[in-house]
Amino acid sequence: MENYFFGMDLGGTNVVIVLMDATGKMLARRSEPTKVSLGPASLVERTADACKTLLAECKIERSNVKGIGIGSPGPLSRSQGRLIKLGNLPGFDNFPLRPELSRRLAVPAVLDNDANAACWGEFWQGAGKNVRDMVMFTLGTGIGGGIVCDGTLIHGSDDNGAELGHLVIQMGGRLCTCGQHGCVEAYASATGTTARAQELLDAGRDSSLAQVYQNAGKLTAKDVFDHAQAGDTLALEVVDGTAQALALTSVNMRHVTEPELVVLAGGMINAGDFLLNKVRESFHKQMWALRHESMEIVYATLGENAGAIGAAGLALYAFEHDQLYDAGT
Amino acid sequence: MENYFFGMDLGGTNVVIVLMDATGKMLARRSEPTKVSLGPASLVERTADACKTLLAECKIERSNVKGIGIGSPGPLSRSQGRLIKLGNLPGFDNFPLRPELSRRLAVPAVLDNDANAACWGEFWQGAGKNVRDMVMFTLGTGIGGGIVCDGTLIHGSDDNGAELGHLVIQMGGRLCTCGQHGCVEAYASATGTTARAQELLDAGRDSSLAQVYQNAGKLTAKDVFDHAQAGDTLALEVVDGTAQALALTSVNMRHVTEPELVVLAGGMINAGDFLLNKVRESFHKQMWALRHESMEIVYATLGENAGAIGAAGLALYAFEHDQLYDAGT
Repeated sequence: MENYFFGMDLGGTNVVIVLMDATGKMLARRSEPTKVSLGPASLVERTADACKTLLAECKIERSNVKGIGIGSPGPLSRSQGRLIKLGNLPGFDNFPLRPELSRRLAVPAVLDNDANAACWGEFWQGAGKNVRDMVMFTLGTGIGGGIVCDGTLIHGSDDNGAELGHLVIQMGGRLCTCGQHGCVEAYASATGTTARAQELLDAGRDSSLAQVYQNAGKLTAKDVFDHAQAGDTLALEVVDGTAQALALTSVNMRHVTEPELVVLAGGMINAGDFLLNKVRESFHKQMWALRHESMEIVYATLGENAGAIGAAGLALYAFEHDQLYDAGT
Repeated sequence: MENYFFGMDLGGTNVVIVLMDATGKMLARRSEPTKVSLGPASLVERTADACKTLLAECKIERSNVKGIGIGSPGPLSRSQGRLIKLGNLPGFDNFPLRPELSRRLAVPAVLDNDANAACWGEFWQGAGKNVRDMVMFTLGTGIGGGIVCDGTLIHGSDDNGAELGHLVIQMGGRLCTCGQHGCVEAYASATGTTARAQELLDAGRDSSLAQVYQNAGKLTAKDVFDHAQAGDTLALEVVDGTAQALALTSVNMRHVTEPELVVLAGGMINAGDFLLNKVRESFHKQMWALRHESMEIVYATLGENAGAIGAAGLALYAFEHDQLYDAGT
């Protein structure tokens, strides 16, 4: 009898739900609108219905599903299965999502941070399939992180580890939204990248971006990458700064958990090899000279499914390590 | 029948050897001069003799000793039990210390980095006795590191993780001996601290340290801390910089493995509460404002025995997890 696992990735706009087998094969997938305004109880109902639809589609009995993994924005409590505070999901604060959904489906469950789930997805079935130690940076509005050490996800003492966007790489540097100065997120996230470009334009620097900025009133990270690829000096300077900050954070992680692989994920990797090659070059330039370091830096391969796949993978891991929470506990 | 463990801490000047029981009680201890010039084979002989003396002192049969843990300066290969390159132990490069000593004593063994061993010592029997997640910085000529996550020592993919002195906290900052710019070691080690003071004096700044510097031709970290405590403005500025760099590295580790505890060890902690309070204050000033962070920063308690005690503790851990290498393999 085969074992199956659900994976759920809770986002502010959509919820992605997948049904996977224990070998990592995705059997079915649904994406549902989150409909935040309907509240968390409605979300539990609709997610449970979606899970049943997936089972029916695949002709699989619910009793063969051994666990459901849930990825959610943090902070959260894994042991209580409770969300704590969610900026873009008003009304979900303190909701006990794991026990509620688990009871509703009568399937044991596990809850984890969405960046951790996405990292585990890439580790289990994506870019990190062949390594034991990896680090992932998810490059979006902010920068999320995930760490796998010797085949185990690092959670930290209070489930708030791997907040890699808030590694400080510049004492007294740029102010980050978190209150710290000099976080990598303040330099190399989509927001940090566009902010640095806009500041240079505001200071009167010449650039092909000036017209775009004037027309739209703001820039996107895509604007900056596009103009850099077209050869604009200011845009190139900004992208080089983004690559340098990401490379330096990779250097730092090499000195902490020494991963074999750094995986870059999130919207910003649409910039393609142009960005990736710059990050790799800057890593080798900034890394120490004491030993040859062979760490690879690559892009994620699972796209927007990484979180849901990883959540299912975390349920499988918890099942195998006897760490699943019984339905409703 | 009780189980016993040897712990050995290999240093450039002395080798410390301890005999411990499985509860962490130290039964006997010896410190022998390393006598580097006699070479590694002589060291193995003398260490084995010292171990036998410890057994005789305690009236313990060798068959009750289940393992020997060896801490050595890195880099090294744990799986091969081989030293790789040791700056201050010429002639020891590539020596298979673990199999040689293990065969000579007919006791299974395990080899690890000395900073990791010291960290494990503090975790097992020292400042970190009551936590599951800690980080240790050893503040000496350089800065060594150790990380315990959920009760497990982090080694990295190639045994070179936890090189925390080489975390970069300032892009393009001070040149470190490792070739990188902006490592915490370049700011906050004893060497970094005195170098910053000397540079300010060389630039003509006024200070009570000027006379000491002129007479001795150089400063020690103790000079800088003593003059700072006596109220000298320049020395205070330098010590504040040291505290800031250590605090920021603690902030960074909080965002990576989220320890409950940061333990500061090494010669520099002789500066006492004066330094510790500055590090704690700077941590709270630099840490983000998103959540209350309760992480403690404390001094190590085992002193110069931490490495040997930790090495014995690693042998116990390896024994319990079936990770000891059989004698001579």
